[in-house]
Amino acid sequence: MRRMRVALAQVNPTVGAVEANARMVIEWMDRARALGADVVAFPELVLTGYPPEDLVFKPAFIEANLRALAAVAARSKGLTAVVGFVDKRDDIFNAAAMLHDGAHVGTYHKQYLPNYGVFDENRYFQAGTESPVFTLGDRVLATNICEDIWYPTGPTTAQALAGADLVISINASPFHAGKAQFREKMLATRAADDLVCLAFVNTVGGQDELVFDGQSFIFDEKGERVARGRAFEEDLVVADLELDNVFRARLHDSRRRKEKLRSDGSARRIALPPLPAPTRPPLPPRETPAIGRLEEIYQALVVGLRDYVRKNGFRHVAVGLSGGIDSALVACIAVEALGAANVTGVTMPSPYSSAGTRRDAARVARHLGIEFLRLPITSVFAAYRRALAKPFKGLKEDVAEENLQARIRGNYLMALSNKFGWLILTTGNKSEIGVGYSTLYGDMAGGFAVIKDVPKTLVYEVSEHVNARAGRELIPRAIFERPPSAELRPGQTDQDSLPPYPVLDSILEAYVEGDQSLPEIVAQGFDEATVRRVIALVDRNEYKRRQGPIGIKITPRAFGRDWRLPIVNQFRE
Amino acid sequence: MRRMRVALAQVNPTVGAVEANARMVIEWMDRARALGADVVAFPELVLTGYPPEDLVFKPAFIEANLRALAAVAARSKGLTAVVGFVDKRDDIFNAAAMLHDGAHVGTYHKQYLPNYGVFDENRYFQAGTESPVFTLGDRVLATNICEDIWYPTGPTTAQALAGADLVISINASPFHAGKAQFREKMLATRAADDLVCLAFVNTVGGQDELVFDGQSFIFDEKGERVARGRAFEEDLVVADLELDNVFRARLHDSRRRKEKLRSDGSARRIALPPLPAPTRPPLPPRETPAIGRLEEIYQALVVGLRDYVRKNGFRHVAVGLSGGIDSALVACIAVEALGAANVTGVTMPSPYSSAGTRRDAARVARHLGIEFLRLPITSVFAAYRRALAKPFKGLKEDVAEENLQARIRGNYLMALSNKFGWLILTTGNKSEIGVGYSTLYGDMAGGFAVIKDVPKTLVYEVSEHVNARAGRELIPRAIFERPPSAELRPGQTDQDSLPPYPVLDSILEAYVEGDQSLPEIVAQGFDEATVRRVIALVDRNEYKRRQGPIGIKITPRAFGRDWRLPIVNQFRE
Repeated sequence: MRRMRVALAQVNPTVGAVEANARMVIEWMDRARALGADVVAFPELVLTGYPPEDLVFKPAFIEANLRALAAVAARSKGLTAVVGFVDKRDDIFNAAAMLHDGAHVGTYHKQYLPNYGVFDENRYFQAGTESPVFTLGDRVLATNICEDIWYPTGPTTAQALAGADLVISINASPFHAGKAQFREKMLATRAADDLVCLAFVNTVGGQDELVFDGQSFIFDEKGERVARGRAFEEDLVVADLELDNVFRARLHDSRRRKEKLRSDGSARRIALPPLPAPTRPPLPPRETPAIGRLEEIYQALVVGLRDYVRKNGFRHVAVGLSGGIDSALVACIAVEALGAANVTGVTMPSPYSSAGTRRDAARVARHLGIEFLRLPITSVFAAYRRALAKPFKGLKEDVAEENLQARIRGNYLMALSNKFGWLILTTGNKSEIGVGYSTLYGDMAGGFAVIKDVPKTLVYEVSEHVNARAGRELIPRAIFERPPSAELRPGQTDQDSLPPYPVLDSILEAYVEGDQSLPEIVAQGFDEATVRRVIALVDRNEYKRRQGPIGIKITPRAFGRDWRLPIVNQFRE
Repeated sequence: MRRMRVALAQVNPTVGAVEANARMVIEWMDRARALGADVVAFPELVLTGYPPEDLVFKPAFIEANLRALAAVAARSKGLTAVVGFVDKRDDIFNAAAMLHDGAHVGTYHKQYLPNYGVFDENRYFQAGTESPVFTLGDRVLATNICEDIWYPTGPTTAQALAGADLVISINASPFHAGKAQFREKMLATRAADDLVCLAFVNTVGGQDELVFDGQSFIFDEKGERVARGRAFEEDLVVADLELDNVFRARLHDSRRRKEKLRSDGSARRIALPPLPAPTRPPLPPRETPAIGRLEEIYQALVVGLRDYVRKNGFRHVAVGLSGGIDSALVACIAVEALGAANVTGVTMPSPYSSAGTRRDAARVARHLGIEFLRLPITSVFAAYRRALAKPFKGLKEDVAEENLQARIRGNYLMALSNKFGWLILTTGNKSEIGVGYSTLYGDMAGGFAVIKDVPKTLVYEVSEHVNARAGRELIPRAIFERPPSAELRPGQTDQDSLPPYPVLDSILEAYVEGDQSLPEIVAQGFDEATVRRVIALVDRNEYKRRQGPIGIKITPRAFGRDWRLPIVNQFRE
């Protein structure tokens, strides 16, 4: 029987930490070897971290990554490993090294370079043109990279036609809600269409605004899932593949399919010296059920925050607790990510803060067991008003005074940050950030905007989920029931200025994620004046978003790398 | 004699203002017609403005631009016009429409899409493959777009070989200091190499962080400059070309050169119906001398600021005047851009402000004739200290207290902005922003960072130039002579924390613009510990730069669209 034990090292590298990433790769290679794996695969650009962005313009960075690869190659004795790195020839390439028994024996260059959404790979890399396959005795192996697997007649097909039993796709595929299911379907189809075993290894962990969800997969040649990696955790996914089944399936393949898939001749064959068959200890059964939509989003936020904090060298975070739902949810996520001892809640009441929100802010802190500071803003606000009395003489109170309150709070938090080295988390959601319902340098002040890609309606859903999974009211019921308010003037509620959140969120989704026009959105049944106002607010507040902190992308289009709108923009729908 | 009168409409479109841009094109077409031009050319993407960024993902935006093109085409009676627009076929293209006598008769698709530096054109456009030429009776005309002209054997060569007498290159070529001279040399070489007349029309004006300098050119087939457009102003550049000279030059061309330039067959010929020869009034002589380096930088800052203010619908700006060189220069630029009546200077002294800086802030305002407000920060600072006394109990004063002062100033300015609708200009220079010697939400608070790409040493040079061109001391001599200081603690100077600015700026240029490594920079004669510290500061302060306002790019690499470094980044040189 032709058999192969394949291991997918679903690891969490750090951008720029080239030597540490290499040590991690060596460690996981050892783990795979101990499990009797024939081949172990690591994610795309695992040695540099993904995306390295303009770091790849530094020759010193490329050299460090090549040194790291050599070190890893030397430690690959007794097995085959696929390792993502930046290759340097006449240009640079997003590459997969085939390491075998202590040597670097072949290289694959990514052919389809994504340059849309959050991706800028044409900025950095030259595209590859070859689809080599590697023979290990009578077993045939190939690898390609991320975007390559999404093309129905791309490198995978070429490699299958050239005889590959197993194609390993190495990835750094960023998360958005629902993507894993979509990815799984696509991979199953690709495996079945190409009659090839498919192993998809994804990176895991957070990098700035991106979070990688892991959820690696192994499929057989029928497109049946053989194994699934854990979501949002490191995992070594190991499975045994019966390669003779691939052979049999191809024997029985209909003429129609064979003709559809014509080899383009780009598949060179590279023979690897055979290794003695490893001892293969029995594999423990894997149980990694798929997780639900809200849990997936929650985990993305937790891991995205944890890695941003940890990889930037912070230990402690602070959150302004207003008594509202957004800050309560952010505090819950922070506690899950970092532990209660590393989170401080700060309440900063004003004369406009209601008794209800004051009480609820304290309750959230108590339920979570976090440190709680109380810093009223009243006296500083009074000092500002005195200082500005002359230029503001005779003028009505307006947004200037409202924003001052938010900015005093921002200053308090930043003073704590400067004094104690804390990272400040902001609490704005996607709905607010979309329409600019937020104060620059006020509630937008901080290092990381945990829920900036979570629309308000989804904030409520995730918050309910947080309580449900905790089995108790981490977030008090009263917070869900009170109408949202910025509490910057007496009796204010969000709905004074904005349409109801379910309406706002639907319009925002159509406009921001769908690039739909005013008439298209109105045609879905929304009031024209409302749609017009929401669109105008989104357009007009680009300048604010540009100065806000980054946050975790969880939707197909976040206000981040995948949203590049000009500030000067006179286009009106 | 085969002759052609060519007009280059060096105009200032606004991104998104599709209808207004079309009206402007029609108006300038009329001006060119009145001058007897055979052909008038407009910049790249003149109908949408450049760069439109993700606006091109909106189908409604593309449609608006196509309607605008149809309107412009209908008004092209009696002449030929080249107009930049977004073409829609199976994909979208960065395109030039050939309009002729009221109809849209042909289209060129940009072939070389820049995807480096500030450019992301692969994100948006499909690349063209054809290099058509257009015959107007016995005269042959061709057009291509921006990046295309930079390739020695690109479309220009193909079009010249296909018989073009004149190639019109339409551009939106962003400014950096020294680029115009480089561009001029390249164009002269291209014209002479391809034995073709070359007309290079550039857009002019500011768009977010980019500024376009105009400086359009017309060259004859010997590579001699026939005309030059004004720098940083709209201009209609008109010249007469003797096309028989092109014919003669090609007759006498050596065999060697003919062989070097081999047609690739991509040049289709499209015949335009001939028009009656226009009456050609005599052209007034043009006198547009090249401007010097400092004047060019100064103009870029003035135009970049003016357009950001105007195109965003602002009228009035405010600048915090510290009594230092940066804010003095920004105030001078603002007055030049907007007029003294539209600029307010705000001094916000603290107990640490010296008598000298207090006096000089007032003098700058007086010299410029701008409104001057004085808002001391002492009492608000005291209120903050009282409010934070409990959490800060027993702790030393440090950067927390320093930053609070800067943030009070930021809040004052933003309160004025909110109350009066002013745009706040920040005054940080490239040296400070590079190493993070600035306070987030403090002196970094504002809508536009005028000199963010101007290193401190250049700030002094431009400031001297400002005084020299004014013929008087707009910026008092004392400001040049006093050691720079943030004045956030007693006796503080910048040089307590930073290397001397000439050293700092050289290291920053090597690291930021040159992507040089620590050993490479040290090899130029800098102290290793200093270089190491500067590099670490640049890396560590990425989070601050991400939240700073945009500003005008004047160097080959600004902290903006052309600087895409991760925040989480553990690469250490």
